[in-house]
Amino acid sequence: MKRIDFQTSPERYRHWRIEPQGDVARVIMDVDETGGLFDGYELKLNSYDLGVDIELADVIQRLRFEHPEVKTVIMASGKDKVFCAGANIRMLGEAAHSHKVNFCKFTNETRNSIEDATVNSHQTWLCAVSGACAGGGYELALACDEIILTDDGTSTVALPEVPLLAVLPGTGGLTRVTDKRKVRRDRADIFCSLEEGIRGKKAVDWRLVDAVAPASKFDEVVAGRAKEIAARSDRPSDAKGVKLTPLDKTITDDAISYSGVSVELDRAARIATITIKGPDGSPPADMAGVEAQGDQFWPLKLARELDDALLEIRFNEMEMAVIQFKSAGDPAAVLAFDEFMQANDSHWLMREILLYWRRVLKRVDLTSRTIATMAEPGSCFAGTLAELLFAADRCYMADGQFEGDNRPEARIALSGLNFGAYPMSNGLTRLETRFLGEPEAIDAAKERAGEMLDAEEADELGLVSFAYDDIDWEDEVRIFLEERASFSPDALTAMEANLRFAGPETMETRIFGRLTAWQNWVFQRPNAVGADGALQRYGTGKRADFNMERV
Amino acid sequence: MKRIDFQTSPERYRHWRIEPQGDVARVIMDVDETGGLFDGYELKLNSYDLGVDIELADVIQRLRFEHPEVKTVIMASGKDKVFCAGANIRMLGEAAHSHKVNFCKFTNETRNSIEDATVNSHQTWLCAVSGACAGGGYELALACDEIILTDDGTSTVALPEVPLLAVLPGTGGLTRVTDKRKVRRDRADIFCSLEEGIRGKKAVDWRLVDAVAPASKFDEVVAGRAKEIAARSDRPSDAKGVKLTPLDKTITDDAISYSGVSVELDRAARIATITIKGPDGSPPADMAGVEAQGDQFWPLKLARELDDALLEIRFNEMEMAVIQFKSAGDPAAVLAFDEFMQANDSHWLMREILLYWRRVLKRVDLTSRTIATMAEPGSCFAGTLAELLFAADRCYMADGQFEGDNRPEARIALSGLNFGAYPMSNGLTRLETRFLGEPEAIDAAKERAGEMLDAEEADELGLVSFAYDDIDWEDEVRIFLEERASFSPDALTAMEANLRFAGPETMETRIFGRLTAWQNWVFQRPNAVGADGALQRYGTGKRADFNMERV
Repeated sequence: MKRIDFQTSPERYRHWRIEPQGDVARVIMDVDETGGLFDGYELKLNSYDLGVDIELADVIQRLRFEHPEVKTVIMASGKDKVFCAGANIRMLGEAAHSHKVNFCKFTNETRNSIEDATVNSHQTWLCAVSGACAGGGYELALACDEIILTDDGTSTVALPEVPLLAVLPGTGGLTRVTDKRKVRRDRADIFCSLEEGIRGKKAVDWRLVDAVAPASKFDEVVAGRAKEIAARSDRPSDAKGVKLTPLDKTITDDAISYSGVSVELDRAARIATITIKGPDGSPPADMAGVEAQGDQFWPLKLARELDDALLEIRFNEMEMAVIQFKSAGDPAAVLAFDEFMQANDSHWLMREILLYWRRVLKRVDLTSRTIATMAEPGSCFAGTLAELLFAADRCYMADGQFEGDNRPEARIALSGLNFGAYPMSNGLTRLETRFLGEPEAIDAAKERAGEMLDAEEADELGLVSFAYDDIDWEDEVRIFLEERASFSPDALTAMEANLRFAGPETMETRIFGRLTAWQNWVFQRPNAVGADGALQRYGTGKRADFNMERV
Repeated sequence: MKRIDFQTSPERYRHWRIEPQGDVARVIMDVDETGGLFDGYELKLNSYDLGVDIELADVIQRLRFEHPEVKTVIMASGKDKVFCAGANIRMLGEAAHSHKVNFCKFTNETRNSIEDATVNSHQTWLCAVSGACAGGGYELALACDEIILTDDGTSTVALPEVPLLAVLPGTGGLTRVTDKRKVRRDRADIFCSLEEGIRGKKAVDWRLVDAVAPASKFDEVVAGRAKEIAARSDRPSDAKGVKLTPLDKTITDDAISYSGVSVELDRAARIATITIKGPDGSPPADMAGVEAQGDQFWPLKLARELDDALLEIRFNEMEMAVIQFKSAGDPAAVLAFDEFMQANDSHWLMREILLYWRRVLKRVDLTSRTIATMAEPGSCFAGTLAELLFAADRCYMADGQFEGDNRPEARIALSGLNFGAYPMSNGLTRLETRFLGEPEAIDAAKERAGEMLDAEEADELGLVSFAYDDIDWEDEVRIFLEERASFSPDALTAMEANLRFAGPETMETRIFGRLTAWQNWVFQRPNAVGADGALQRYGTGKRADFNMERV
């Protein structure tokens, strides 16, 4: 399988256009049929594959950073009579199970980032639907804050996956229908059984869309609503955006290197080691300094590199069992950046940077590899970077100086950002999730924020899984990594998906938990993916041949 | 596959003993190795199969109804050196996917009923663990309110499924570890990777058990704790229990008949029709009258029959796509029973009957068949029975008198019990779940409680999916049922599992949603169930051969 590249930019887009105009931007989906990421299918009717979604993720990201003045984003189709037909069926039919799962996870994260932009960046997405809007197409619309549908004979919304394809509307569809739009459950059942979908006033009555407008007035209604929404945003009209320039990235056989992140791929041991370099200097004096640094501001650059590294491992290194986080640098320097970020968190750009870190850390939580964080001598897991200790399935901390090692003794530290800036999908901070059974431990940790904690102190506070001195360190870590690589990858994926998200559920956790898990199950069932299953038979004129046992 | 019978009674038990002694009862698990439900495996080391669990479900039920005086239940092992080794691996290895899934669901429901007894009937389960308590054994312990572990060299708790079998601790294990016992997530990860488990003080420190006691004092400590727990229960010491006598049940080729429930099996159309007969007369004057009627009291008898019918269809009629509920009787007579039940809901026996109905209705929600409720002329979907309208994926109501049909026009009615007595697994009533997006509709419905509503009124209030007169009824219903039977059974199962439980999540919904869905996925993966997978290779001395791709 060819290496998938997640880096793109507007001048390279084949499927999307951004048309900013003052405080409203239009984002036009106009998929190039011949621009599929893989061979063997055409992206007809604005259907999408991963390549289309990589561009969309880039669109969302750039609108947030490069266009502070944009307050409403209108998503619309560039095609006549079709909004979007959803994920490309032929692509899905041909894809390996692992690609289906990875693809759906990425598209879900992308749709969540639309909601994140709306709710937290006050850059609100509004979906203007003309033509057929089906399956993944309607799931795109569902991710927007409002949906306006053309009231004509051909514009419909539909989730026809179950009747047509024997799979679920798994990119958030079922969950957003019940939990976000709160459609009555029997109506949801009817809607999800209808190949042809629902249109007009009934779509409004059933809460499937927010409004309809006749074709003759559609653009006017949409534009008017976009202006109303823009008026309530707190995004600045006169700020200068930050251009996201290409990453400084080098790929070799067994390594991926960025300026501040390096990934070492040990394919025999099935371990990907991501090492994060601490900052070289101090934060700038003020936000003008950050704006001057642009995407070279250390926390922003690091977030972009880390995000890309995670996607590289997810899609291009499928057999890695463990992602091992290491770091090298001065924890006090990291804390200085955290303090600076927290002090300026009301500035639009800092808000974006903090929200981006939140998303990257969620991407860690949702990565189906064992996450292990190793606080070795010389490491700098402080503040924002300490989140990687708590995102890990286990974290190991080196106790004391190691013989023959001249790096300083390991220290970890907490900052104010560990106590609210980076909630997980479950709505809790990683420390709250960790200490669900001992909430008093959070207060104890908070009292020590800003202090450099040695292994014994960190262990006492419950912040690390193990603290080992140099006599035990190597063996203990090696045994753990070997053990992890020997277990069933599937059992680990499922176990970690359950253990990582204790506590409350949110729409996000339901999408990645309940909905995704059921979809993955369906993606294994012969009724969907077998030679006579619905995904294979779609478009052949032959009906799928089902095993009728209800499980 | 042989027909599975869910009816049993203590004199027929092969695996359990109930030893009531005043306000404390001991329940002893002492599995007969040769008593497996199917051939091909021995139930060694107190391992269990469905047959063992059917007896346990009966134990729990009888303790509640037949022993009002029992306030604490001590669960213990009758074997030396082993508490319980969990689900029998050889049985799991040989079972079809559908049986694994059905088996796990039933065992989950049984463990939930232990928690229901504890929390709602104040008959608290206490687990006394001596010897190895592993996998499903520890999951049994987790379902109890407290776990006391013998502090010796051999008594351990363990969830070794992932390292040993490449499957999950899927009978609530992962969820109860994080959500009920709130074990720190990295410790949960370590615990679930350890074949040998954890014992002694560390098990207490890690919140895996509540207390340890040395073998010499173990019985004394457990008995003391049981007495303390009993002292806080409100169960009566001097009430007479209600004996649960054998059901009046006849099975023929295409029907199962009980006194008040009949099941008609249309195997060609794949529809199981459950028809419920309304009450013949009025409720007794008072609770003394109910006690005199015992298990012949109409609501109790009906709940038992309905419960059995659901299990029959789940396990013995796997190809039924739809369960269609019908009813026949006087809705006013049903309401009279509801009023009587609600007026007496503080009596221990009525509390048990209402809680049983709650569990039976949850069993409906969790049954992976399309549920369709048909309020035809002559039906009596009132109060408690009206819950079947709201538990259904869709409900159809006949509008007006039907030509040539001398049964009275269909009427439905609500009672006070529809507004709180029967919460779903998500903690909401079915009406609250239904009207998540329109909470004002609940108030509107409440105002009409007690009234006989015709189809137009019911439709107006949002209580039914469709109202059809006799011109449309037959075609509409037929088309729906045919369509449902033609869809992929898997896609429907997964869709319904998502659409039925909108709103908040609870430990129960997480067990049946997230955990079960992942386990079902794992149960499809070659790494677990393939010829070289861990379930097949267990005990052969050969290691499983895994595909190492992480999905």
